[in-house]
Amino acid sequence: YMYSDSLRIIQDKTAFSFSMDTLLLAYWAKGLIRDRDKVADLCAGNCAATIYMAYFNRAHYDAIEIQDEVYSQAVRSVELNDMENRISVYRDNVLNAPKFLRKDSYDVVTVNPPYFKAPKGHEVNPDRKKAIARHELLIDLEHIIAVASGLLKMKGKMFMVHRPERLGEICYYCIKYDLSVKLVQPFVSHRGENTNLFIVEAVKHTGTDGTELRDAIEVHDQNGEFQPIIQRIVRETDEDRAKHDAKGKYYFYVLLCNDGSFYGGFTNDLEHRLKMHNEGKGAKYTKARRPVRMIYHEQFDDKRLALKREYWFKHHSRSWKEKFLRDHNIKF
Amino acid sequence: YMYSDSLRIIQDKTAFSFSMDTLLLAYWAKGLIRDRDKVADLCAGNCAATIYMAYFNRAHYDAIEIQDEVYSQAVRSVELNDMENRISVYRDNVLNAPKFLRKDSYDVVTVNPPYFKAPKGHEVNPDRKKAIARHELLIDLEHIIAVASGLLKMKGKMFMVHRPERLGEICYYCIKYDLSVKLVQPFVSHRGENTNLFIVEAVKHTGTDGTELRDAIEVHDQNGEFQPIIQRIVRETDEDRAKHDAKGKYYFYVLLCNDGSFYGGFTNDLEHRLKMHNEGKGAKYTKARRPVRMIYHEQFDDKRLALKREYWFKHHSRSWKEKFLRDHNIKF
Repeated sequence: YMYSDSLRIIQDKTAFSFSMDTLLLAYWAKGLIRDRDKVADLCAGNCAATIYMAYFNRAHYDAIEIQDEVYSQAVRSVELNDMENRISVYRDNVLNAPKFLRKDSYDVVTVNPPYFKAPKGHEVNPDRKKAIARHELLIDLEHIIAVASGLLKMKGKMFMVHRPERLGEICYYCIKYDLSVKLVQPFVSHRGENTNLFIVEAVKHTGTDGTELRDAIEVHDQNGEFQPIIQRIVRETDEDRAKHDAKGKYYFYVLLCNDGSFYGGFTNDLEHRLKMHNEGKGAKYTKARRPVRMIYHEQFDDKRLALKREYWFKHHSRSWKEKFLRDHNIKF
Repeated sequence: YMYSDSLRIIQDKTAFSFSMDTLLLAYWAKGLIRDRDKVADLCAGNCAATIYMAYFNRAHYDAIEIQDEVYSQAVRSVELNDMENRISVYRDNVLNAPKFLRKDSYDVVTVNPPYFKAPKGHEVNPDRKKAIARHELLIDLEHIIAVASGLLKMKGKMFMVHRPERLGEICYYCIKYDLSVKLVQPFVSHRGENTNLFIVEAVKHTGTDGTELRDAIEVHDQNGEFQPIIQRIVRETDEDRAKHDAKGKYYFYVLLCNDGSFYGGFTNDLEHRLKMHNEGKGAKYTKARRPVRMIYHEQFDDKRLALKREYWFKHHSRSWKEKFLRDHNIKF
């Protein structure tokens, strides 16, 4: 399954399926992605991470995947989630990204690279598709980091998930390509075991010191189940679902004050806002005219539109306001 | 206090005193130092780490400290512990080490460097002595790592203790100077907090991948006391003391078998060895001639001397052996 019931991912279990690593990467990155950011997702696979991140904000995403079939799955997954206007998927080698993505323009780059060096002298996974996703056959760590750095703005952030075996090299290539290692978040399967996965956050063109090394997060409990913190990352809780549904909802509302006057306002929580007004904490105007009654509201996805509506209402005359409310069948 | 009651350290609390960092570094390094190794201790301070390591093995140590007073303390500390024949202390800048220490000749280099970058535009600690130990005033991270790498043999190991703020840079400079980051051992004060100290082990001239990132060791318990694992590192237990005293003691012994013949042997535990012989697990010769009685033993600090003594005894005639035992007032 995918994080939320409202998200859908197409994948082929025999060739490539997203793993917990992907979701951990997406979770860490989404915490720092803002609505107007431009994000590049390198080695995107079927776009599980991209879609996960896009679920939490309104940033624009460019995702790159080299393998034909996986690319097709990515495109269909993005369509299934109605995210075509925010996620563009490219079928190409990450090495070529600088040819079709703008240099120095991304706020965030996420990378879930192949973990293993290309073995010499012996065969990798006979399934070529799996091999490409796991081994550095078509691109290596140094080139991925070089491309990521090239795409990022100054102070832009790269997030990468990898195995600790490559920690030394990752730090080396980051600094070589002007990325400072700012955060290392290790994960251990059980307390006391060696790290088997970590996420690194690197920032472009800033002081090379200041690395924060977090205590490892324990992934499994004694029964092999995910710890609560991990459960919550891989699977949306009802509470998080409610929060998510509430987020991005903005309201313009009209109050009828006890002196018969109207008050137009803006909020993202109608119930709470009305309570504040009646407790005298909402606004000076309504504090002196309590109790107030909410007689009208409109919902907006876009905060700016809700604010515009409020401004527009406030700057009209009493008679215009009465007509507006009558037109909406409001009695006052 | 210093680790063991049998060790003495001279230090000036107001200027420079060794800290837990020093002992952690020494503890990690000593686990991989063998008796015939050559070790360089850079930024050695009053040689607390050097003396700690030297307590556990018979390696030779070259310690470098730049500050006059601290250097004097180091020299006196080494003398107090009768380690002058195994620890040489140099008063100089680590930068100059390649002029008086042989390049490519060390098995292990330990480093407890100044942790902080030299601040620009504002004052460091007004106490110049403390400032030099804490800030990169006379040498910086890159040069320390370059010197360490230069001193090491191929496959030689560098151990460094540092703050996580510099983790990214340490990995970068290690790889830049042909050292691969093989182990990162973080320490947290309490579980869940960020790492405030780590030890890194880097190996010269080997594959750059293969970093092992350990789960962090928790230093303090809920009452602010050291956890048992840390207590044992900073302070010798009675048990460890007994082990230490037993270590490095080798014995040549003579058994009188039940057929009147002599058996010469070698062991590091007389009591256990005699028990084995009488249980028939010691040697074929004695298994067939039980019970046996231990009538003579000699103690050696050097294993090779004890083995030589055994060889020499075994290759003499019965009459020579009888004379040898009579000369030592042994009745048989």
